[in-house]
Amino acid sequence: MSAATPGTSPISLEQLREKARLLRIHSLRATTAAGSGHPTSCLSAADVMAGVFFHAMKFDPANPNAVQGDRFVLSKGHAAPVLYAALAESGVFPVSRLATLRQFTSELEGHPTPLIPGVDAATGSLGQGLSVGAGLALGARVQNSAARVYVLMGDGELAEGQVWEAAAFAAHHNVENLTAIADINALGQSGRTMYQHQMEVYRAKFEAQGWQAEVIDGHDMGAVVAALDRAMKTKGRPQAILARTLKGNGISFLADKEHWHGKALSKDELAKALAELGAIPPVAPDDGKSYARKSLPAPPDFPAPPAPEYTLGQPVATREAYGTALKKLAAVNPKIFAVDGDVKNSTFAEVMQKAYPERLFQGYIAEQNMVSVGAGLAAQGLVPFVASFACFLARGYDQVRMAGISRSNLNLCGSHCGVSIGEDGPSQMALEDLAIFRAIPGAHVFYPSDAVSTERLVEAAARTNAICYVRTSRPKLPVLYGNGETFSVPGFKVLRESANDRATVIGAGITLHEALKAYEQLKAKGIAIRVIDLYCVKPIDGAALGAHVRATGGRMVTVEDHYPEGGVGEACVFALVGAGVPLAAVKNLAVTRVPHSGKPDELVDAFGISARHIVSAVESLK
Amino acid sequence: MSAATPGTSPISLEQLREKARLLRIHSLRATTAAGSGHPTSCLSAADVMAGVFFHAMKFDPANPNAVQGDRFVLSKGHAAPVLYAALAESGVFPVSRLATLRQFTSELEGHPTPLIPGVDAATGSLGQGLSVGAGLALGARVQNSAARVYVLMGDGELAEGQVWEAAAFAAHHNVENLTAIADINALGQSGRTMYQHQMEVYRAKFEAQGWQAEVIDGHDMGAVVAALDRAMKTKGRPQAILARTLKGNGISFLADKEHWHGKALSKDELAKALAELGAIPPVAPDDGKSYARKSLPAPPDFPAPPAPEYTLGQPVATREAYGTALKKLAAVNPKIFAVDGDVKNSTFAEVMQKAYPERLFQGYIAEQNMVSVGAGLAAQGLVPFVASFACFLARGYDQVRMAGISRSNLNLCGSHCGVSIGEDGPSQMALEDLAIFRAIPGAHVFYPSDAVSTERLVEAAARTNAICYVRTSRPKLPVLYGNGETFSVPGFKVLRESANDRATVIGAGITLHEALKAYEQLKAKGIAIRVIDLYCVKPIDGAALGAHVRATGGRMVTVEDHYPEGGVGEACVFALVGAGVPLAAVKNLAVTRVPHSGKPDELVDAFGISARHIVSAVESLK
Repeated sequence: MSAATPGTSPISLEQLREKARLLRIHSLRATTAAGSGHPTSCLSAADVMAGVFFHAMKFDPANPNAVQGDRFVLSKGHAAPVLYAALAESGVFPVSRLATLRQFTSELEGHPTPLIPGVDAATGSLGQGLSVGAGLALGARVQNSAARVYVLMGDGELAEGQVWEAAAFAAHHNVENLTAIADINALGQSGRTMYQHQMEVYRAKFEAQGWQAEVIDGHDMGAVVAALDRAMKTKGRPQAILARTLKGNGISFLADKEHWHGKALSKDELAKALAELGAIPPVAPDDGKSYARKSLPAPPDFPAPPAPEYTLGQPVATREAYGTALKKLAAVNPKIFAVDGDVKNSTFAEVMQKAYPERLFQGYIAEQNMVSVGAGLAAQGLVPFVASFACFLARGYDQVRMAGISRSNLNLCGSHCGVSIGEDGPSQMALEDLAIFRAIPGAHVFYPSDAVSTERLVEAAARTNAICYVRTSRPKLPVLYGNGETFSVPGFKVLRESANDRATVIGAGITLHEALKAYEQLKAKGIAIRVIDLYCVKPIDGAALGAHVRATGGRMVTVEDHYPEGGVGEACVFALVGAGVPLAAVKNLAVTRVPHSGKPDELVDAFGISARHIVSAVESLK
Repeated sequence: MSAATPGTSPISLEQLREKARLLRIHSLRATTAAGSGHPTSCLSAADVMAGVFFHAMKFDPANPNAVQGDRFVLSKGHAAPVLYAALAESGVFPVSRLATLRQFTSELEGHPTPLIPGVDAATGSLGQGLSVGAGLALGARVQNSAARVYVLMGDGELAEGQVWEAAAFAAHHNVENLTAIADINALGQSGRTMYQHQMEVYRAKFEAQGWQAEVIDGHDMGAVVAALDRAMKTKGRPQAILARTLKGNGISFLADKEHWHGKALSKDELAKALAELGAIPPVAPDDGKSYARKSLPAPPDFPAPPAPEYTLGQPVATREAYGTALKKLAAVNPKIFAVDGDVKNSTFAEVMQKAYPERLFQGYIAEQNMVSVGAGLAAQGLVPFVASFACFLARGYDQVRMAGISRSNLNLCGSHCGVSIGEDGPSQMALEDLAIFRAIPGAHVFYPSDAVSTERLVEAAARTNAICYVRTSRPKLPVLYGNGETFSVPGFKVLRESANDRATVIGAGITLHEALKAYEQLKAKGIAIRVIDLYCVKPIDGAALGAHVRATGGRMVTVEDHYPEGGVGEACVFALVGAGVPLAAVKNLAVTRVPHSGKPDELVDAFGISARHIVSAVESLK
């Protein structure tokens, strides 16, 4: 453990100041060795970092990501070198390793990622750390851990709205085990920050959110320690320590100077700077071992939930089946938690909440925070399901991007996809969600067409160690599958098949049902088609799908309630061409312009994705 | 004009109360006729809407989107019926038209879109209106208009961080012609809001941002009018009127009742409600004319800027050429404005700012607000360029989505794409930006590979009436084109071509330069390839591109500094298959996993998109 009982630190202020001096030395040397980085952003934070790591935090350096240990999130990710220095001085990895900063073969990337022990979430897109910290803190609380979470933010990133979403969320949920430290050095990347050193503005902002907030001199170690001690004793609310600092503090020619953001010192400048910092401690030779984390939090195994209980043809919205699925999973897997954005009665997350009220965190209308809270919960080994209207999950896309870099086990459910929502109009229709979530590396994208497959795919999401996105629909759709049906990943289902099929028609969600109608209409004309349910839009097994497309002479129609770019059609064509499947004639039916309000069936037809259009497309294929 | 000089309203409080009564009647009748909608969200706002439209605002009902007229943004877009009612009572279109709400053939969609006169931006994704309003207000200011902008927000959406980004931005820029009214009815969609009627919490939040803020009873017309008058007289800062209201106000069985969100009244319920509201005014028969806006703000024509001034082979980063291009355009087009997020020295927007300091709005690190401010500027007929690191524009993706629904003339520039940024690592690398911006309907996506094409494509963006996204790169790249070269849209350039080409190799940005290196390496082996610069990633002319792929036997290699999903490869394959071009053998080289820090060249090679990999891919094609 790096420090002892709160308030009874065995380490003196003098020793903490020495730690801060070492953090400065390490940060400067590492960035100069790398030839890039943000040394001045490290120097402003060095004193508070020393206070947090060597006075306040209690964690096991051999297992710094444990649920029982205190956690630290460097929201201002560009100050990575000072974090790495603190981890090294805490014994997580050798100090010698700092010299490898930013090298391709090093654990120590330019911005923190969870491959580095002691890091729980990738940072570097600013303003996300406080939400992640809130998720970590709640994740500790629900697992009966007394651990605290510390988040270091820069003042530049306090302009990000997500910070204030997180602040409101944490106060509303009485997250008392969360301490935010703002390193207010008044200098952004391209100039002075909006409020510079108007410390009372920041205090007013945090207090307006219901936080305990205090302003300190961030270079006065006594003040740092006293503030951290007060924070640890605070009950019922999160705490903000607003540290007035100087960028580049500790070095005469860097302190509070503009045009030094993101610049490493030259060797000569480094020598001058180090001369100001005093004696350079010896560094033991590197042991050459890898310190990258061997494993990241993964979803636990759990017993099978009860099978679906529907009857064939029963009209059930897939969004409703999502709620049922989540409730059933929660019953058999205590790690399942939900995050809602005041739409639980639309996504049907409320079905789970009614059974397990304490396992849904209400995030109100603040999707960025929801996503990052989910990433924080996942980093505590929980299995989060974050749900909203699919189009509003786009609001948290950068947060999903960062969760992707974190290799997070985050699950997302987006309801109300496509024009089939009807009268509410385009602002409420997700028509780009497949494109954006497919583009997250490693993500799985599920798009169920009935209630049975929804339940099975939500279970698959809970078992899959990757970001999973489940796309659900608003309209009631007839159940297609028996309750015992299983759904492999990757995979698809062939619903209609004969030896004489003229074309393969691929749909998902409402368009699969249109394809089945088209099958009947074409059958009446003596034309057979193969109908495929592409319930798994990513990954796609191009060779397996290609067997069907080959069997239908390379003729294919895809149909989707989505824009053409990045959707079902592009995904299929790309997978097939990648697998070397010859395509003789392909039609992709999709929504090709901004839609309009109207009745669902009217829109499905007007925007070219109804059975009638599928029939025409099949007939047009040579 | 719907009202006279501020403070000397010719309309009495009694008349305003009658207007509010009519807005309630219209909202209830329209939603019941539609069978869906949010009547109770209209009722809470009816009194402040009457005050804003019939006391405060001055605009020409025949031209309600004029730069010289006051503007109104309904940020809580689900209250559309009360806005439509106010527009109808203002004479913008007939009251009879309200009965067509939410019909496919009606202008009056479920949520506002700019096809409706008096609407400047699509709303319905909450928390964006204040940013749009700030853009409209700045757009009026820079065009010497004395017009004011009013934004009506709900309390639910005050949880969105973007609201607080906008609040800070508007105060920082002293946007005194902006008045926000918050309709604080304490009921969200799925339950009570976070702060319910704690009016002082909201006041503290706005005051902490530097706003003038006051709390009123939002159903007291005298208080509404007095607050609007005070706001109009306020100098130097934006004003917030925090109106305590009840959802469903005015109808006994709706007021402050849960479970009425987003529900239209049945016919019987409507009759009961109308009975409480008194006499129903007669409605003249509908004239059947279209009231949809004939045209939306479009980029003005402007003289050609000076031609590029580079020499072939000169190393220039495309991001730097962006700054030069913007400066040149600003010189010949006074409508050009830039919005920055504290990265102007990375995107090179500062080149323009140094020449025209008043034409760059500093948005600090708050990308959501930046994008919506840009949409507001565009709605005032200006030509905005919003630039940040490409990966951080993802933070404003939902805002771009809404700008797409608005058919906005918004231009975006994303710098620092791909692994070629090097040491900063994955959090700073955009590898999904092509996918997400391609999925915006009507958007144009440009990806220049040298300084000349960058200047030409930035000019094309300024002339194109659509959302344009320009992807720029960090490394210096040799100039490929003569200064007189022109670039059609859609289009591509064939840089290497012979009668014996074995394959078509398509690149853009840094990968085009890798393709040119591969050309030389293959040439040395006696293998010819066709090399194409796909500077316009959307739209793509599949037939034109296909002519080259056909000429090379259907053999193609695409190579991109982007993830495979939704990028250059998928776009090309989809366009070619859509155009019926036979593909014999295709390889798509892209970044297929989360990258890592390292040297740019090292990463380009390690992630499989360097010349060496192109050579192998070409050789592997059968």
